Parts: sequence; structure tokens; C-alpha cells
Amino acid sequence: MSHAATLRAMVDELVAAGIRDVIVCPGSRSTPIALATKAHPALRVRVLLDERSAGYFALGLARAARRPVAVVVTSGTAVANLLPATVEANLSRVPLLLLTADRPAELRDRGAPQTIDQVRIFGEHVRWFAELPLPDGERVTLDHVAAVVGRAVAIARGGSGTAPGPVHLNLPYREPLIPDGPLGPACALERPPFTDTLVGRSTLATADVAGLAARLPVSGRGLIVAGPQDDPSLPAALVRLAAATGYPIVADPLSGVRCGGHDRGQVIAHVDHLARPGPWREAHLPEIVLRFGAAPTSKPLATLLAEAVPVQIVVDGDSGWREPAIIPTTFVHADPVATALALAEHLVFAGDAPIERQWARAWSDADAIADRALRAWLAARTQSGEPFEGLPFALLGDLLPNGGLLWAGNSMPVRDMDAWLPLGERVIRPLSNRGANGIDGVVSTALGSAAAGVGPVALVVGDVSFLHDLNALVAARLHDLSATIVLVDNDGGGIFSFLPQASAVAPEVGLPEHYEELFGTPHGIDVGPIVTALGGEFREVSAGDLRAAIADSLARPGVQVLRFRTDRDTNVRMHREAAAAVSAAVAASVAASIGAAAVGRA
Amino acid sequence: MSHAATLRAMVDELVAAGIRDVIVCPGSRSTPIALATKAHPALRVRVLLDERSAGYFALGLARAARRPVAVVVTSGTAVANLLPATVEANLSRVPLLLLTADRPAELRDRGAPQTIDQVRIFGEHVRWFAELPLPDGERVTLDHVAAVVGRAVAIARGGSGTAPGPVHLNLPYREPLIPDGPLGPACALERPPFTDTLVGRSTLATADVAGLAARLPVSGRGLIVAGPQDDPSLPAALVRLAAATGYPIVADPLSGVRCGGHDRGQVIAHVDHLARPGPWREAHLPEIVLRFGAAPTSKPLATLLAEAVPVQIVVDGDSGWREPAIIPTTFVHADPVATALALAEHLVFAGDAPIERQWARAWSDADAIADRALRAWLAARTQSGEPFEGLPFALLGDLLPNGGLLWAGNSMPVRDMDAWLPLGERVIRPLSNRGANGIDGVVSTALGSAAAGVGPVALVVGDVSFLHDLNALVAARLHDLSATIVLVDNDGGGIFSFLPQASAVAPEVGLPEHYEELFGTPHGIDVGPIVTALGGEFREVSAGDLRAAIADSLARPGVQVLRFRTDRDTNVRMHREAAAAVSAAVAASVAASIGAAAVGRA
Repeated sequence: MSHAATLRAMVDELVAAGIRDVIVCPGSRSTPIALATKAHPALRVRVLLDERSAGYFALGLARAARRPVAVVVTSGTAVANLLPATVEANLSRVPLLLLTADRPAELRDRGAPQTIDQVRIFGEHVRWFAELPLPDGERVTLDHVAAVVGRAVAIARGGSGTAPGPVHLNLPYREPLIPDGPLGPACALERPPFTDTLVGRSTLATADVAGLAARLPVSGRGLIVAGPQDDPSLPAALVRLAAATGYPIVADPLSGVRCGGHDRGQVIAHVDHLARPGPWREAHLPEIVLRFGAAPTSKPLATLLAEAVPVQIVVDGDSGWREPAIIPTTFVHADPVATALALAEHLVFAGDAPIERQWARAWSDADAIADRALRAWLAARTQSGEPFEGLPFALLGDLLPNGGLLWAGNSMPVRDMDAWLPLGERVIRPLSNRGANGIDGVVSTALGSAAAGVGPVALVVGDVSFLHDLNALVAARLHDLSATIVLVDNDGGGIFSFLPQASAVAPEVGLPEHYEELFGTPHGIDVGPIVTALGGEFREVSAGDLRAAIADSLARPGVQVLRFRTDRDTNVRMHREAAAAVSAAVAASVAASIGAAAVGRA
Repeated sequence: MSHAATLRAMVDELVAAGIRDVIVCPGSRSTPIALATKAHPALRVRVLLDERSAGYFALGLARAARRPVAVVVTSGTAVANLLPATVEANLSRVPLLLLTADRPAELRDRGAPQTIDQVRIFGEHVRWFAELPLPDGERVTLDHVAAVVGRAVAIARGGSGTAPGPVHLNLPYREPLIPDGPLGPACALERPPFTDTLVGRSTLATADVAGLAARLPVSGRGLIVAGPQDDPSLPAALVRLAAATGYPIVADPLSGVRCGGHDRGQVIAHVDHLARPGPWREAHLPEIVLRFGAAPTSKPLATLLAEAVPVQIVVDGDSGWREPAIIPTTFVHADPVATALALAEHLVFAGDAPIERQWARAWSDADAIADRALRAWLAARTQSGEPFEGLPFALLGDLLPNGGLLWAGNSMPVRDMDAWLPLGERVIRPLSNRGANGIDGVVSTALGSAAAGVGPVALVVGDVSFLHDLNALVAARLHDLSATIVLVDNDGGGIFSFLPQASAVAPEVGLPEHYEELFGTPHGIDVGPIVTALGGEFREVSAGDLRAAIADSLARPGVQVLRFRTDRDTNVRMHREAAAAVSAAVAASVAASIGAAAVGRA
């Protein structure tokens, strides 16, 4: 018996705790949750057919809307399909509430159909697990359920010192599954949640701020590294800190610092090029690095940090330990915005000498040189009609309007975003599943973000990733979503072309003999008819008409998949050419400045 | 450094322990395993792009080939995607070896890219977990790796008293990932495994056989229930037991007992109809049930057992506890074939009275009546051109040659298989993912079984299940597989039409208002162009030409998807009509026999 009163208590608490979106996958055992959530006017229910896709869809929606999203699935392998998105949500700190229907105790572990062990099935990959009791209509059950649901949402949002993330509630139901009474809100929509939470913001003591500030040599060889993060208030705080220290801000594409109305005078977009080995890098090794956000995307930057071994300070408001360079590190477990502002204020108040800007200017000048070199190189290539995988990001940086969401697939697109998304004034929100960096679920995630309705959505994704999540477009069809998808199609796994596996001549291990079969994986599949059959629009685009096609798609409803065909080998060559163009331009400026210094000395 | 010697030791042991098939998903961290398995001439490596699909493909291959299959994936969410197939393999007792590449210790839990917590990620859903050391080339490492790999395969195959199932080995690798020396067999292909295992067959003591036999009233109201199981030697043993007890064998479609050259005189195919409430059932309630295999598919049979509360004996050679009827049960944890034969022998030896066959004959007669009624009903319907979802199984039972594999999707197809797969002489192997009964991964599983090359493969699957696993056909394209797929397309979730959710008029819970959105889930997707784009052949078939289309497909290479369009409401009506036709025919025979008895008494 599914007691309607208990279901109403649960759903009322979901709403009171701030849930507004529920993704429901069809199932029988989940009938009570599906009907109860559907009956509440404050909840928007969307049905999806594939639970793996639904998990990623919810993740994208939660990220875009900046609030927890609930996913409802029936018992059995439906639950197991949520693990990939759960792993990503855990590492990328996205609030998800996983509501999994289950069989009651008497049907478990005795061979009953569609019954698996769902208790703690997500292990350490969720922030919290709880199993609700059967909805028996007892007063204490109602209150217990409301309290647990409120706590689950609160934990998913992140408490003091713990990151937001996925929470799993397992909900057993006994037949009959149809609730025994009316559903819908049982109380005023505006009531506070049963489990109400006030979460303190973690700030450093004044003495700790002073101690930290004392380690920052003003005008010294410092870098503020803005890693992947999604707090829109952080860029302005970092700009204040940059002004107070004289440090440039090395901005990951996913930091939110490259794009927006804040002062970008000290923001560096091209560290992925500048950090590559060469005379410029050797002359500009940092002595101190102050990082906010996750570890940056750029591999050259990661290598530079591991080799230069600067003093490193990592600020993480969620008490994390993200430090892959393996160098001695001070972890600051305090609110990043508050910390940046407190440090800036302390330095400005304490400082008496004017701040020298040569170091920051050297970075900015090099960044501008890199930017010009890249633009010139790309313009020449595009004019000659050669398709280049960085082009979509260069164009989307220009074309996406204020408030646009720009998704990059793993594994090549996000690197191309790093190299090709320029600084700009419009508030574009660059996003990617960089918790676990999976190529799975990328299209579903982007479409989930489109469902948030916060701005136009564009996604750049490779063909293997697109095939992996082929049924994602079912969601767009069922829910009338709009998105611009640039499908970079090089018929296989492009990233491997950049790895040693591609160039190794080692017949004793089967290379290059087995390279294409094991890594390149050409599939020869034309996804055009698939996109059309799933209700999307499909268009083949060349380098010459990509700009117009993106602009056209952004102006129209529905999902447009723009296939941009490239060649894996050519792509590697072009990436190396572009890098060489930057490196030559930057090296020339180094030589010129040395020459100028020599002239000055003469 | 990936020491080639350690990799060779690992792969040699895989081969020595009996692995012949390896499914590899592309990735960088998994490079050492991919290259090392590819280099061994005794291993057949197949590359698939989607790990979820790869897991199910391996499951299907392992089931069909009756030997363990290895799956190789890279680190990150790739691993998480294996959970659904792992859950199924655990519950359906299929040997899988999950080889997951991982980052080394120094990259874990510090924000390094594509690094998730893979240790024990499958929790209780695998039989064993072990993490291998870095391949450092030390002698002790080589031996340890060989011993662990051999043990893993042995456990996956199932030891004495433990069921076969999935085993997870986590394999960390440090860069460079390309092995440092030659790969390929390091020793003779015919060497015994490092960890060699002799597994005892668990047999009952003579006294226990006698005790059990004493509980079986020869010629009494007993049933041998043959549930889902896949041991081809069991049917003959059950036939011997049936002869010795006089009990009919109630044969689940997945028991392997319906089809084959054994004596089928006491085999009952239509228990799903006979067990429905009615005069026949009431007159034929069993007093003792001796079950082999998993719990049967038929819900009417399950209900009958729960209500009639017969003495129940469940024989499970893997020490399982599969008893969902929740009635007092004797679990026999001993080899099923040996147990059936020992019981039969004991009864024959001990028996002095001739065995009465009335009870068995009553079941056989009713089964024959049901069969005739169903055939007549179906013939009339098919002649009138009305598509019926049971038709594919009736036809495939006729058309599949000896050695054919017949897969049924969950959730409606397997029930239709139960109702419509007749008894027959040809050795058809009916299969379904009935461990967890998921609708996910069904197409991948069937295609995996096609890769085993043991016989032609046919699959009957619904449209929601097909959409869920849409990219499964990529596997067929990459590996030139052949299969006949009957796609029963009723544009949504057909099984819900049979559940209370469909007929409930309960506006206070939103029924029928939200039925189609939450349960029916019509999607309107025409999968034809998708199948063609993925390299399959697609054909629209009517009830009239389904037979010819199946016959044609079975005779040709490649994957043919035969779309058989049905209507959800009509389908429910037709199922009820068919059930009514059987019930009327059987009731008439009961009345006639009562009449005859009355005449006899007169």
C-alpha cells in the first residue's frame, strides 16, 4: 500500500527544500514517486527513456540552473545506469538527488524479478545514502520522511565545508503501487522545509589572512591560476586580488574568468601556449601560484607547475584536495570569494610601495601576441577552406550572446576550447564535464542544461562521444529543447593522434600495426539520418560556412547538429602549426625585448 | 613504465585460464592491456565504443560461448558504465572478467584528470575484487600477477558452491603507457594456469537423497518446475526424474526444457495459462514442487505457488536462495543434474508399485488443449492480418534451426516467449537477461552472443528497449555480426498497459490523466533510418509477411531489423482474448471430464 499522505509529505519537502525539476524514467515500482511528483504544481517533471542519459541530463540541468535536480528511476539495472553521472556529479560537485524505487524487504535477495541490491550501490560516490521506510501513513513516518528528504537536499546542495554533490535515497514500495488517496501539495507552498539548514560560509581568521598575505610578494613572480569553477562572483574578486598583487590571472576556459564585463586587463587566455617549453616560458617561471577552482585543463601548465615547483596555495571552499602537480601546497579551506577579497584588502591596506606591473605586463603582452598569432593563423587557414577543430570555439566566442552556455566535450574539444576561446566582454558560461572527464553523457548533459532555460546552449563534441550518447536526442524530441551542436567528425578518436600511441614505431608491441583498430577506431557511421530520425536538424558544414550555420542555429528553436568534418592526421599537423606560429611570435618578442635591453645598455 | 614482461605474464595467464575473447573499449590508460591482449594469438580482441554496451556484449558472448569473457576499459566513468551489465552478470551468474585501467596511487584523489575512485566500485555486485600492482618487472610481481589473474578467472567461472559471475581487477599504470619490450606469448600456449583449480561437484550424501526422495509421493500431486537455467544436460535428467515420480515438468521458456530431442511427453509449455485462476487450476493445485533453475518467468505460476503453499524443494548447485514465493522451502545446495538423477535412481530402485500417470496426463492433456486453442486463435488472427506480439515467438519456434539462439527482451517479449514458444524437437536455446530483468543492454547482449558463432541468433525486443541501447548496432557494424531482430514497435512502454496503472481511474492521483506521459511514453521515433545508418538492414513487416521475413533474415548475413508495428491497447485486448480462448477450451475439457466421471458414476 502506497500511503498518499507519506508521498505528499515527501514531495512537499522536496519542494520546500528547493527542488523544482524532476527527471522521471518510466517504470512500475517507481509509480508512487512519479505520480506524486507529477501532482505537485511547483515541480516540473520531464520523462526520459534511458537512465544513463537521464542522469547526465539532470546533471546538466542542475549545473545550468544552479540548483539540485531530482532523478526518479525504477528498481533494477535502471539504478545501475545512474552510476556514470553520479561519479561525474560527485567530482564536479553538482547537486543531484537520486530517488530510486526499490522492492520492499520481503522481495529482496530471494530471486524476485527485477530486484538487485540497491543499498549503497553508489558506494563512496554519493555524499549520503538513506533508505526510506515503507510509506505506512504513521505520523512518525511522515515526519521522518520529510526530515530525511530535507536533509538529503541540503547535503546535495553542500553544507559548510562539504561540497555539493549527489545524494541517494532508496525508496521501497509494496504493491499496490497506486497511491491510496489524493496527491498534490498537502500544505502551503511557502512553508519552510522540515529540515531547514543555515550554512555558514567558511572564512579565514584575520591572522590567517595576514599570514597568507605575507607570503605573497607584491609585484613578484606570482600567478593567480583560475581553474574550472562556476561561481559567477569569483572573477571580480580575482580581478581585485590581481590588482593588489600585480599577478596576472591565468584563466582556464572553464573558470568563467575569460568572458564577462569585469576588468580583463590582467587576464591571460593563452597559457596553454605560453606554458609550452621555449625561451618565453623559461624567462617567466612563476615563484608563487595561488589557485582557485579545480586543476586547470592545460597539460603544458600542469607540467610547468610540476617542474617549476613554485610555492603553491590552493583555495577550495569545499575542503577539497585537488592538487595533481604533487608539489608542496597550502590548502586554504575557506570561501574563495571571501578569501580573495580579504587578501586583496589586506595587501592594499598594508602596502606602501606602488605596485610594479612589469611582470603582469610581460604576461599580458605575450598573451596579446599569442592571440594575434592564433587569429592570423586561423584566418589564413579558414580562408583557404581547411577545416580546423579549434574553429568552432573561436566562432562561438564571437557568436554566442550574453548568457550563452558553451559546452565542450571531452577529450579534444575541451582542449580546443582552452586554446581557442578568446577573452571577451560578453558573459558566456563555458562548461564541460570535468569532474571525471568522461566522453559519455556529454550530449545529454548539454541538453539538460538547455532545459534550464537560462540561455542559449551550444556544444562542441567529437563523433565518438556523440555515438556513445546516441539516444540523448530523444530528450530533445520529447521536451522541445533547443541547442546548437557542432559535431567535430573525424571518424574516430582524435585525441589519440596527439599521444605517443599514434607515433610509436614499436612493432614488438603492435604499433603502428594495431593503432587504428585499438585507438583510432574509425567507424564510418554517418549520423545524419540518425539525427533526423530523432527529430534534430542535421547540416553538413565546411570551414567557410560554419560561422553562418552557427549564427543561424542560435537564432532558431530545435536542435541543429552541424557536422564539421575534419581529418585526424591533418588536425594534429594544424595544431602543431598553430602552436609553432604562437611560439615563433612570442620568441620574436622575447628576442626584441632582449635586443631593446641591449640597446638601452649600450 | 609498463613492463612488458608483467603484461605478458598477465595475458599468458588469461589464456591459460581459458579466456579467448576480449572486448576492448578505446582509451589511453588502458593501452598496456589493449596492446598486450591484442598481441596474443589465442585471444580474439573486439573493439567497441560504448562501455555500457561493451559490458552487455561481453555478457552475451560469455553466455553463448559458455566461457568467461574479459572486458577492458580505461579509467574514469568508462568503468562506471560497466555497472549495469555487472549487476546482470552477478544475478544471472555469467562469468565476466572486468579489467579496468587506473591511474597509479600518486594520481588518485588529488584532482588529477579522469581519475575516479575505482576501488571496489562495483561493491557487492562482483564475486571478487583485486588491485594489481604496477607492472614493475620484478619476478615476484610477475608471479603475483599471474596467480591473481588465474584466480580471478577461476572465481568468475564459479568455484564449488559459488556461482559463476563477474570479477573485477583494477590495473594501475604509470606513464609511459607503451610497453617497454616485446609482447606476445611468453611461454607455451598449452601450459596450465599458474593458479590451477579443480572444482568439486557438490553431491548429496546417500542418506540425504533417501530423505529427499521419501518426501516425494510417487504419482502424487507434484510438479517439477524447470526455471530459467542454461545447462544443456539438465533437461534429460529432469525427464528421468519425471518418469520416476510421475510429476509433469512445468517448463519455463528459459529452462531449455521445452526444445530439444529429449522425451517431452511430460513437459508442460503453457503453465502461464493453466495457472491462471479458473476451474482447471483449482482442480490441479500441486502439493509438492521441486524446482530447478531460477524462479520462473510466469506471474500466474508465481501467484499459484504463493497461494497454494505446496511443499517446496529448490535445487540450486550454486548455493543460491532464489525463492520469491515466500513459502517454507528446502534448499538443496548440490549439483542439479546429479541430484535429479540420484533422486530418480533412488525412486526407481526403491519403488515397487507401478507409477500412476493420471496426474501427469491431466497436465499434458490440458497443455495440449491450451496449445491447440492458442494455435487456432493465432492462426485466425494472423489470417485476418491483425499484428499480435506473441506471433514472433510462435514463428521463431518453427523457423530457428537446430542450435539457434532465441533472445527475448524484457519486459513484454519474455512473457510472450513464455506464452507462445511451443514444445519442439529442435535444440533452440532461449535466452534473456533475467538476472535483473533490465530493458537496457538487450540488443548488445544478443549481438555479443552472435559473436560467439555457436548458432544463428534471433532477438525479439520492444521499441523502448531498442532505443535504450541504440548504439548497440555499432558493434554489429564493426564486427560483421549477423542477427535477426524482430522489433515489436508499439511506440512506447507496452507492459504498463497490463498493469493497474493503465486501467486506474483515480483522478486524485492523476490517472488516467498522466498515464501516457509517465508510463505509455510514446516517442514517435522511426528507427528505420537509424538502423540503416548504423549498417543494419531495416524492413517493415506485417503479420502476414513476418514468417517469410524471418526465414529470409535467418538465411542471410548481417543484421536485419524487422519492424513489426503493434498497438498497445489492441495488444492487451488480444492477449486477453487468447487467454480467454485457452481458458474456455480447458474449462470445457474439465466440464467434459466431470461429465464423463458423472456418466461413469451413473
